[in-house]
Amino acid sequence: MNVLGNYIENFSKMNKIPVAILGATGIVGQRYVKLLSNHPWFEIKEVAASEKSAGKTYGEVMKSRWKLGGNIPKEVSNLVVKECSPTLESKLVFSALDASIAGGIEENFAKEGYIVISNARNHRLDEDVPLLIPEVNPESLALIDVQRRKRGYKGFIITHPNCSTTELCLALKPINDKFRLKKILVTTMQSLSGAGYPGVPSLDIIDNIIPFISLEEEKIEQETLKIFGNLENGKINRANIQVSATCNRVFVSEGHLESVSIETGEKPTIDELIGCLDDFDPLRKLNLPSYAKPIVVMKEEDRPQPRLDRNLGNGMSVAVGRIRNCNVLDYKFLVLGNNTIRGGAGGAILIAELLKVKGYL
Amino acid sequence: MNVLGNYIENFSKMNKIPVAILGATGIVGQRYVKLLSNHPWFEIKEVAASEKSAGKTYGEVMKSRWKLGGNIPKEVSNLVVKECSPTLESKLVFSALDASIAGGIEENFAKEGYIVISNARNHRLDEDVPLLIPEVNPESLALIDVQRRKRGYKGFIITHPNCSTTELCLALKPINDKFRLKKILVTTMQSLSGAGYPGVPSLDIIDNIIPFISLEEEKIEQETLKIFGNLENGKINRANIQVSATCNRVFVSEGHLESVSIETGEKPTIDELIGCLDDFDPLRKLNLPSYAKPIVVMKEEDRPQPRLDRNLGNGMSVAVGRIRNCNVLDYKFLVLGNNTIRGGAGGAILIAELLKVKGYL
Amino acid sequence: MNVLGNYIENFSKMNKIPVAILGATGIVGQRYVKLLSNHPWFEIKEVAASEKSAGKTYGEVMKSRWKLGGNIPKEVSNLVVKECSPTLESKLVFSALDASIAGGIEENFAKEGYIVISNARNHRLDEDVPLLIPEVNPESLALIDVQRRKRGYKGFIITHPNCSTTELCLALKPINDKFRLKKILVTTMQSLSGAGYPGVPSLDIIDNIIPFISLEEEKIEQETLKIFGNLENGKINRANIQVSATCNRVFVSEGHLESVSIETGEKPTIDELIGCLDDFDPLRKLNLPSYAKPIVVMKEEDRPQPRLDRNLGNGMSVAVGRIRNCNVLDYKFLVLGNNTIRGGAGGAILIAELLKVKGYL
Amino acid sequence: MNVLGNYIENFSKMNKIPVAILGATGIVGQRYVKLLSNHPWFEIKEVAASEKSAGKTYGEVMKSRWKLGGNIPKEVSNLVVKECSPTLESKLVFSALDASIAGGIEENFAKEGYIVISNARNHRLDEDVPLLIPEVNPESLALIDVQRRKRGYKGFIITHPNCSTTELCLALKPINDKFRLKKILVTTMQSLSGAGYPGVPSLDIIDNIIPFISLEEEKIEQETLKIFGNLENGKINRANIQVSATCNRVFVSEGHLESVSIETGEKPTIDELIGCLDDFDPLRKLNLPSYAKPIVVMKEEDRPQPRLDRNLGNGMSVAVGRIRNCNVLDYKFLVLGNNTIRGGAGGAILIAELLKVKGYL
Repeated sequence: MNVLGNYIENFSKMNKIPVAILGATGIVGQRYVKLLSNHPWFEIKEVAASEKSAGKTYGEVMKSRWKLGGNIPKEVSNLVVKECSPTLESKLVFSALDASIAGGIEENFAKEGYIVISNARNHRLDEDVPLLIPEVNPESLALIDVQRRKRGYKGFIITHPNCSTTELCLALKPINDKFRLKKILVTTMQSLSGAGYPGVPSLDIIDNIIPFISLEEEKIEQETLKIFGNLENGKINRANIQVSATCNRVFVSEGHLESVSIETGEKPTIDELIGCLDDFDPLRKLNLPSYAKPIVVMKEEDRPQPRLDRNLGNGMSVAVGRIRNCNVLDYKFLVLGNNTIRGGAGGAILIAELLKVKGYL
Repeated sequence: MNVLGNYIENFSKMNKIPVAILGATGIVGQRYVKLLSNHPWFEIKEVAASEKSAGKTYGEVMKSRWKLGGNIPKEVSNLVVKECSPTLESKLVFSALDASIAGGIEENFAKEGYIVISNARNHRLDEDVPLLIPEVNPESLALIDVQRRKRGYKGFIITHPNCSTTELCLALKPINDKFRLKKILVTTMQSLSGAGYPGVPSLDIIDNIIPFISLEEEKIEQETLKIFGNLENGKINRANIQVSATCNRVFVSEGHLESVSIETGEKPTIDELIGCLDDFDPLRKLNLPSYAKPIVVMKEEDRPQPRLDRNLGNGMSVAVGRIRNCNVLDYKFLVLGNNTIRGGAGGAILIAELLKVKGYL
Repeated sequence: MNVLGNYIENFSKMNKIPVAILGATGIVGQRYVKLLSNHPWFEIKEVAASEKSAGKTYGEVMKSRWKLGGNIPKEVSNLVVKECSPTLESKLVFSALDASIAGGIEENFAKEGYIVISNARNHRLDEDVPLLIPEVNPESLALIDVQRRKRGYKGFIITHPNCSTTELCLALKPINDKFRLKKILVTTMQSLSGAGYPGVPSLDIIDNIIPFISLEEEKIEQETLKIFGNLENGKINRANIQVSATCNRVFVSEGHLESVSIETGEKPTIDELIGCLDDFDPLRKLNLPSYAKPIVVMKEEDRPQPRLDRNLGNGMSVAVGRIRNCNVLDYKFLVLGNNTIRGGAGGAILIAELLKVKGYL
Repeated sequence: MNVLGNYIENFSKMNKIPVAILGATGIVGQRYVKLLSNHPWFEIKEVAASEKSAGKTYGEVMKSRWKLGGNIPKEVSNLVVKECSPTLESKLVFSALDASIAGGIEENFAKEGYIVISNARNHRLDEDVPLLIPEVNPESLALIDVQRRKRGYKGFIITHPNCSTTELCLALKPINDKFRLKKILVTTMQSLSGAGYPGVPSLDIIDNIIPFISLEEEKIEQETLKIFGNLENGKINRANIQVSATCNRVFVSEGHLESVSIETGEKPTIDELIGCLDDFDPLRKLNLPSYAKPIVVMKEEDRPQPRLDRNLGNGMSVAVGRIRNCNVLDYKFLVLGNNTIRGGAGGAILIAELLKVKGYL
């Protein structure tokens, strides 16, 4: 690289927004590290984790725990891991903490003025906390003011929905907008990475399916109603939709596949239904770096498939395929999304990007 | 074994009903061989397959094609494979033929006086052919007379439903009897053995799900209506139920798992629903050798699982678990069945056993 | 069962030797439960585990931890789990304890008069402790007296070798006897159950091999020398063999496959080599209930395979296949053994059976 | 892209060397398509395959056969598939043909003046055909003249070794140069993609290992001797090395892992051994586009692993790990290589790049 190149790079670095990752050592934490390591707007300034890891460099801590292939980005590898207390320099904080501890820690940060974007379930259903998918319910950002007022926070908390909820709501958003959803019945086939690390023991899943994921069905059924709810007087009224979910764990490393049947208020033709999915591109004009066309409609009779389609749009697009009539409800189809990117770190980074263009950072 | 033992064995053999297996070299054919090799009523007298295999002993042909573990039963191994033409000695014939050729061959056999029990799809929806699960619709045996009369057959054809249909209908039978089914919505996660051999290439399924199985959804949707239909004047009126199926192939060797939601005419409590499943034991008194209580209700929160539960009742019982309310229809649950036993060879052998006690053999 | 049958069953139960299982909740512990539940000589009288489990019934504790399929044998399910302290009633004790705690606990039991048969690595290399495979080095029972004298134990400890060592030494025993082993070079492909439960995280092994198993190579290299060593004056001189091992973890549920090359002092023809493996049947006359011909020689070009061959001889036989010349050493072949049966609980039960016929119980 | 950019792109395209791929529809053929689609020196001008495919566009033919994820490069998708006869426009031809037909077709092309770089085994051991790994035996290009003279070819054939041989020889090359190899003993654990498509049936490999790959052991044992042989008077004398191979198929999608033990003439310290592997970088100065440092030495105790390390150097580097003393030979270690890139299409493209800089194109 020549002198000019160096100059541009340094300059742009100087102007990047410093961010911290809480719970940087877990599976979602690692995804944050990977996705943010070359981000044009953000720069990983701090990584934080449990006391056990604090004080060592991220590289040391992750020596046998880095699961994403390739190498740990060098700048991050050399960072000394900090504890998860609100004394960090970065004001923008991504929380990939485990739900067993996330609740209180995130509150502490928000209280002290930090902007917390969380993947944990703890605050998702709080009345005054946005449960946000940028392409689906950006209007819920209005809850930030409510939250600050009510809680006296200097900062605030925004939550990102559960992975399987995210891809479902993304696929259903244009349908709900145009044809009013009344019923959603979904059976998921979810990947191993959704359970974190060490997660599912190999002896449990070899030659097998586990037809149960703790709390997952409740998350889908409840979060969907909040996400599609409507905001009135600083409050979200739950959507009037019936949602029923069955969740299974299967032997796939990444990518959740969902078999979905829906009933709508209006009755579109199948071409109208496909058309509204195909046309959906709500944030194109904002030029957010992580944004990709949210829905890719597949026409092949045997797609989407996790291994082949989980990285569409750099993992930010969901694939919808096999759209056809349902003999019980109106239509049925399959949805596939990348659970650690779209349903995890990538979705949260997109929230941060939205916050930036909306002037919150 | 002493002289008396030998005598008893020979005597009982002398009195066993000789049977032939058409398509004995495929996956379902192998299951027949294994299940029939120690059957108290039937004895494998002949195995038949394609011209390529005919003339060699079954043992030779199967040398690198036997997929079930253990050894090929010695008596069968020594049999010389015959061609699939109606010149066999055994009058009872199990057809595990591929659908591409099964139709005509089965007709030829029935014409010539053979009793054909078939796992192929070809004649399942024929008006005058029973589509039979012994515990579910034994009354459909009445179609045999219709068939003979209409077609001038000396023998007859009985078909066994598709594997995923079989386990679904078994689990739903007592519910339909008591509470009248109106809607069935099912998403299946089906095992590799369901695709036969060589079947699914490993490169297609590693770290993956294939959300499409050719014709499978149609089979479930159509066969279910015939199975639950009612017989009137030698004709089956399709049941008035809405059935919608989505079928997926997953990385499991054996056992199809199905996520099912139902709506019923009557509205049972959940205990009434569980009770009727638990009580279902329709053929107990017939003492059929392959009969097992058809439904095992599981109470654990994470069952049934294919690897743990696919051999309940020697593979003849289906497991029903996670019975709970459905926010869209009335109830939902998971059903697991062994596709090569209950949904294949075992189910067909049970038909033969029923034919025997009913005096058809 | 009639009155006479009941009488015989009760009588034989009355005369069974009561045994206890230490560490009964782990994977090897479960194998003990399964293998001993219908044993003609032994009866599970007590199950012991960590403090956490003690006081509850085995059935309760194992509710979501039973990994072997089928049901927990009822008599065992109802037993109240005890702690692992030497106050048990059964004088014969099988230890499936984790190496982190097995050492001291086993010593305590032996001191107090218990006969301890252990699968843990702790005492395997102790000078005065037999490292015993009944078919290979039964003469090492002579160390029992040495051990008692030296340690002042009222009971004694016998150890069972590591799973991958066991199958290797079984396959090599007749070769060493006849042709004197000089060099052994082995690369293993070991199954997931060898790592216990929860063991290997599924995310680590999906679409992958882990070419490292902690301490496993050392175990094979050292234990083999003791097992093939010769006993002189109450001491085992290590065998003069060069052993080199490389150990890999692969995605298989059960059964360790080993690729072995050997050099021998005498130079047999390949037929002599195969012959000595085929003829090996050393304990036939003792009529031990768990005994099976230890070696099954396979002639097919693509065997042994874990899924097809891991249950030969009820899991007590090892399969040896693809015996052929080696361009570097003399001969090479593949060995497959069931790690939880032959290499775990089954092998230890065979030791107990040998102790009984030798008058130690 | 601006006008200047367009100009540069068009200009560079105009100057790219047109190439054809024979057998473009198979697994290795697809790899060629992917690797060549943005190659700076070559441009896919033609794809050829069997008669069945000829006449349709590559996109049509590959609709449900493209196995590499992502999309088929558009320029290639639109090409009409041709037959494999020597009437192609491109003079440089990559052959990914099946061995059952490759031999004669490749000869026809060479006769007519084409330069054929082949992945098929047919001509690998021919006296006058280079068996070439650019980093290992570039001197074997001298055989081209011998071949042309002897056969009267206007073009010529160069073969690329078998995938598992390639990675083995790459890892051993610097060791042989410095310390003279005497013995090589290798056990491979090979991935599913090595068997092509459809290749290994999933029912054969689930929960299993297949300890046999047809002809693979012979290929490793024979090709290695030619590759390390020395060229004298237009003839390659086989190397004086003892090579013994055992080959297994495991459930991994891509990447062959090999457990290797070696004995050398000179006796390096382990640091000298590691040093010579680390330093190996023979073609650095040629600036070949596909070249990457051929060997990456890994220090972690549990590496290399297929899923984590198969894409080092864009799939062109092999990873060597766990280098340690061997109790039987001198040293042992594990080698991992990408079989479809380094051991397939990528290796052959590197040959073409070498041909270009050496003036053969």
